Amino acid sequence: MNCRLAVVCALSCVCAWSQTNVVKYQATIGNVKYVYASTAPVARLKSGDILDTNTLDCFGDAIQKPGDTLSQAKGDNPLTGPFYVEGAEPGDTLAVKILDLQVNSDQGIGAFAPGFGAINPTNYTPMLAPALPEKIWFFPIDHASNTATFQGLDSKFSVKIPLHPFFGCIGVAPANGEARSSIVPAEFGGNMDSPEASVGNTVYFPVNVSGGLLYLGDGHAAMGDGEVAGTAIEVPLKARVQVSVIKGQKINWPRFENDDAIMTVGAYRPLDDSLRIAFTELVGWIHQDYGLSEFDAYELLSQVARIHLNEMVDPNYVVVASIEKKYLPAKKHDNR
Amino acid sequence: MNCRLAVVCALSCVCAWSQTNVVKYQATIGNVKYVYASTAPVARLKSGDILDTNTLDCFGDAIQKPGDTLSQAKGDNPLTGPFYVEGAEPGDTLAVKILDLQVNSDQGIGAFAPGFGAINPTNYTPMLAPALPEKIWFFPIDHASNTATFQGLDSKFSVKIPLHPFFGCIGVAPANGEARSSIVPAEFGGNMDSPEASVGNTVYFPVNVSGGLLYLGDGHAAMGDGEVAGTAIEVPLKARVQVSVIKGQKINWPRFENDDAIMTVGAYRPLDDSLRIAFTELVGWIHQDYGLSEFDAYELLSQVARIHLNEMVDPNYVVVASIEKKYLPAKKHDNR
Amino acid sequence: MNCRLAVVCALSCVCAWSQTNVVKYQATIGNVKYVYASTAPVARLKSGDILDTNTLDCFGDAIQKPGDTLSQAKGDNPLTGPFYVEGAEPGDTLAVKILDLQVNSDQGIGAFAPGFGAINPTNYTPMLAPALPEKIWFFPIDHASNTATFQGLDSKFSVKIPLHPFFGCIGVAPANGEARSSIVPAEFGGNMDSPEASVGNTVYFPVNVSGGLLYLGDGHAAMGDGEVAGTAIEVPLKARVQVSVIKGQKINWPRFENDDAIMTVGAYRPLDDSLRIAFTELVGWIHQDYGLSEFDAYELLSQVARIHLNEMVDPNYVVVASIEKKYLPAKKHDNR
Amino acid sequence: MNCRLAVVCALSCVCAWSQTNVVKYQATIGNVKYVYASTAPVARLKSGDILDTNTLDCFGDAIQKPGDTLSQAKGDNPLTGPFYVEGAEPGDTLAVKILDLQVNSDQGIGAFAPGFGAINPTNYTPMLAPALPEKIWFFPIDHASNTATFQGLDSKFSVKIPLHPFFGCIGVAPANGEARSSIVPAEFGGNMDSPEASVGNTVYFPVNVSGGLLYLGDGHAAMGDGEVAGTAIEVPLKARVQVSVIKGQKINWPRFENDDAIMTVGAYRPLDDSLRIAFTELVGWIHQDYGLSEFDAYELLSQVARIHLNEMVDPNYVVVASIEKKYLPAKKHDNR
Repeated sequence: MNCRLAVVCALSCVCAWSQTNVVKYQATIGNVKYVYASTAPVARLKSGDILDTNTLDCFGDAIQKPGDTLSQAKGDNPLTGPFYVEGAEPGDTLAVKILDLQVNSDQGIGAFAPGFGAINPTNYTPMLAPALPEKIWFFPIDHASNTATFQGLDSKFSVKIPLHPFFGCIGVAPANGEARSSIVPAEFGGNMDSPEASVGNTVYFPVNVSGGLLYLGDGHAAMGDGEVAGTAIEVPLKARVQVSVIKGQKINWPRFENDDAIMTVGAYRPLDDSLRIAFTELVGWIHQDYGLSEFDAYELLSQVARIHLNEMVDPNYVVVASIEKKYLPAKKHDNR
Repeated sequence: MNCRLAVVCALSCVCAWSQTNVVKYQATIGNVKYVYASTAPVARLKSGDILDTNTLDCFGDAIQKPGDTLSQAKGDNPLTGPFYVEGAEPGDTLAVKILDLQVNSDQGIGAFAPGFGAINPTNYTPMLAPALPEKIWFFPIDHASNTATFQGLDSKFSVKIPLHPFFGCIGVAPANGEARSSIVPAEFGGNMDSPEASVGNTVYFPVNVSGGLLYLGDGHAAMGDGEVAGTAIEVPLKARVQVSVIKGQKINWPRFENDDAIMTVGAYRPLDDSLRIAFTELVGWIHQDYGLSEFDAYELLSQVARIHLNEMVDPNYVVVASIEKKYLPAKKHDNR
Repeated sequence: MNCRLAVVCALSCVCAWSQTNVVKYQATIGNVKYVYASTAPVARLKSGDILDTNTLDCFGDAIQKPGDTLSQAKGDNPLTGPFYVEGAEPGDTLAVKILDLQVNSDQGIGAFAPGFGAINPTNYTPMLAPALPEKIWFFPIDHASNTATFQGLDSKFSVKIPLHPFFGCIGVAPANGEARSSIVPAEFGGNMDSPEASVGNTVYFPVNVSGGLLYLGDGHAAMGDGEVAGTAIEVPLKARVQVSVIKGQKINWPRFENDDAIMTVGAYRPLDDSLRIAFTELVGWIHQDYGLSEFDAYELLSQVARIHLNEMVDPNYVVVASIEKKYLPAKKHDNR
Repeated sequence: MNCRLAVVCALSCVCAWSQTNVVKYQATIGNVKYVYASTAPVARLKSGDILDTNTLDCFGDAIQKPGDTLSQAKGDNPLTGPFYVEGAEPGDTLAVKILDLQVNSDQGIGAFAPGFGAINPTNYTPMLAPALPEKIWFFPIDHASNTATFQGLDSKFSVKIPLHPFFGCIGVAPANGEARSSIVPAEFGGNMDSPEASVGNTVYFPVNVSGGLLYLGDGHAAMGDGEVAGTAIEVPLKARVQVSVIKGQKINWPRFENDDAIMTVGAYRPLDDSLRIAFTELVGWIHQDYGLSEFDAYELLSQVARIHLNEMVDPNYVVVASIEKKYLPAKKHDNR
């Protein structure tokens, strides 16, 4: 069975799985990391391998019941990994196809976390105004109906929200010897809080160090655009992803792709610049792989582009720009 | 009056259809305006009246064939109106329900307009770099299939795009005696380039002067998020809208509503602040009309809000934040 | 006419002083304006005339003693004018040389004004946080020592601050038929809050309508960079300025000049874009009038430019970029 | 001789120097670093020690003559260090007093560096516009007159610029296990490009790791506000600084101080947020050490604050906000 078939039938097939290697790794509060960095890997994968693992929630699973406080979390966004992918070298691209994600608990957590939030004072948009009071919402998860339930703290209102599990954190070791906190999104991916990091999508990262060094974490059961109050419905995840190396293809920023669309990530602030990054990357991708001139690509995007504002609460703000493949010419040569 | 309109209006009107007044007004290049201002109205409407009118495209319909140039346009975004709505006084809200929009030509125009664009130097993000060359794309409109066709200028690629006609410009006279150019979006609406200004939606505006003074223009046959290259598929429109006055309800920024969702507009720059405006308005709307506490509303939005980045190319940037009504409690008292 | 003025004007005028016409105009709360617009002038000046007038403080002189409240102000930034300058036509430049400014009261006012402030939530950077409480500081003015005295409200500390009187508001009628609130700075000048609008400096404005239509107001006795809490030491002024028309010279943004430096204004938000506007204008000015290539000008500015961040509290933020003339070649031809 | 006296007379005194320990360290292209990180120190200092060292220019001294190209530089901003300061532990403050800086070459370099510049497209404000062409200006240094000479590349103009040597890079190991590129300014200092990092000033840093780990580099012979074209007059330096540890004083961002003023640093983007950081820090400093209420401090700053926009070209933008001590009450208790 070749790699591509393995991916297609990954969820359900009982067929020749033995031909695709599956690596299992168990994350615990004792082996998680808090920075994306070039450090000793916890496991090694071959290009094409499947990784079965899990992630803790952004609080290290420390918040469990009313009365618990954010101070009980040892750190933000504990990361599973890093995973070394053999053959990945600087200048290559690492592709991570997300095969399966399951919410690994019976409740999710939402909180006003100090320093986070789109419409309250934060560490990097500070004001002479009091911080939000610490508040924690618990969202019961119903696995049967695939929903989480919002329950008002101040009012007797509750409502079900469909689950859309994804990795808030997915990234690789940064370039230039940098090590970045697990709360930061940037060129290496990281805390992108992109709902695009979900089943059916492939994420591409620039490889900056030998092995790429993949990190996973910060599972979200569901999240609104912008993650405006600073957290999603935070959950631990069980995860299955497949890694592969695209040799000799250099990209500058993370990208997503599925059968229907190509998507680029821009991450910095203000949002204006995140968007500029995402769109110059998208124009470049269309130009390079699909052959439209830059000006034709720019004009076409003006009519059919989609913008998904992922979050405006982390130190850098993340935007995903995309175009559906049905609006594009045939790919010049399928090298991905 | 046809049955379709009867349905559209059914919620509030118990009267016979014959009793809904329809006012007709024909816009021409000779009677359009280029500023939102407190000026003599072209027609007067009663609350509940339907307006049948038309809008010129953003170039005043001056670009018709290859070889035409942007300099042939007399001005940007010629506006139909203003329409005086009787009974509308400062402190009230003007509701404009969009009943019908038809593309009123057989082609649309896209162009690189000097000073506009998300990833090129502009008037307000100037750079020591050459401006984009003037380029014009013509999009044939197929009314039967309801599509426009993108045709590459530099490549032999063409693709059909579904029509989604909307008003790029819809607004009222500004507050405080201001008069604003038809290229600007702000508290009074204006050049919001919101695809939400389309059939099935109601737009709410603060009334700043007697009669509100409604302006319409800048029809778009379709547009990508962000309108990144500076124009949509620009077309003249035939339009039918219904106006009504909500007495004693004061809002600060435009809002949209339909059967499924409530939506708020934020317009300024950077996008960070547009988003802050839209979300503080949305939290306030939920709190006031649906009874959630501000903190519960904020947390709920963090899980289910939608952000639609309308444009990042006009002098001010426009974001629409929304929540589906299915996630909200029952409205406290329906006063709208 | 006193000797001091003669000296001030000495550079260009070789004529007898008696030949310089002085127009006097008295502003009162009954004749001030609250928008920059194309409206009937209060007086007409010839190019070269001197205007002797006065301005009310930003509260219309309504705050006089402890216990007074901001609600007593009829509006913000009442403006003296407009003054029609004969011969000024669109495409020309209006030069306003500031000859004399005197603080016209024995105290100045500082206040937390709702919606203003660099590090508190405002109208355009709103937050889910309480607004600052209304607070008013009174600054006694000592005309003999030319100082104002800060007196703490919460502490027994007071300190003298040297006076540097300037116009917070100075501008002309906007282009394109716009009318703008007296709290806004933009291409037409307006509420720039530029300490550069002080004695010894000349301000240049683009002429957008016949007569230019000069407005003056919002006197400041002194102000810190950024005007961070939202107000300066607000005072009424007695003012003497000289207007002149530079025919056929078109500028896009206001400029300042004195014997030592040339200065350009950028006004929008975020500050990044204000600065981009100011520096592209300054590179263009150096290139056009002093003959350096754009690239040489850009590099030279990288080594010797000065940036004065005037305010980050009005709807648009104002930056002045400047270069001392000692760093420039001789002017190509003195046409100013 | 106590430490304080040693500092005061450092430049000229031949007196009891022997009592202050002087550590010498020679930086070369072989021992420089390119990240601020927690790594093995090159030398250890005691609190109160003086460090005599040198820094390479931002190109590693690789650009020497016309025809040389930026590609000859091994990396940007090679750093001298790190230096371990004994007793410095997380939660303390490291004070670095700059005693002497000498330009260590006969010419300085200015260049258009790809990705840098305030009014050209960059890595984080990318545009569909060509990058600036690579250009290098050489500035002869005249040590006798203490000037550098700008020489136009495109025109026969040259002009002398007074030297004001300072460290473009000065910082410590970041918090939370991060390692940051030498082109980035942030909470740990770094590539702040602050002319305040010059003789007579003391810089304070938060201590994030044992020993603090001080790095120095990126000497500038002079620089305009904003460093708008992306480089200053880049030079190697000979440097003498004195380090001391302030136990138990925790700060969040770098600060500067001299006899006349206290100064705070804000570093991120947009500039709006850099300024918000600097001013909330400055209000906090005044409140804590000088006893004014936060509101009094805010109002006082509105009248007398100074803002120095250091640079808008690095990944994060740096602003220094300051107040002269003559405007402040006596310090509550001198613990610094």
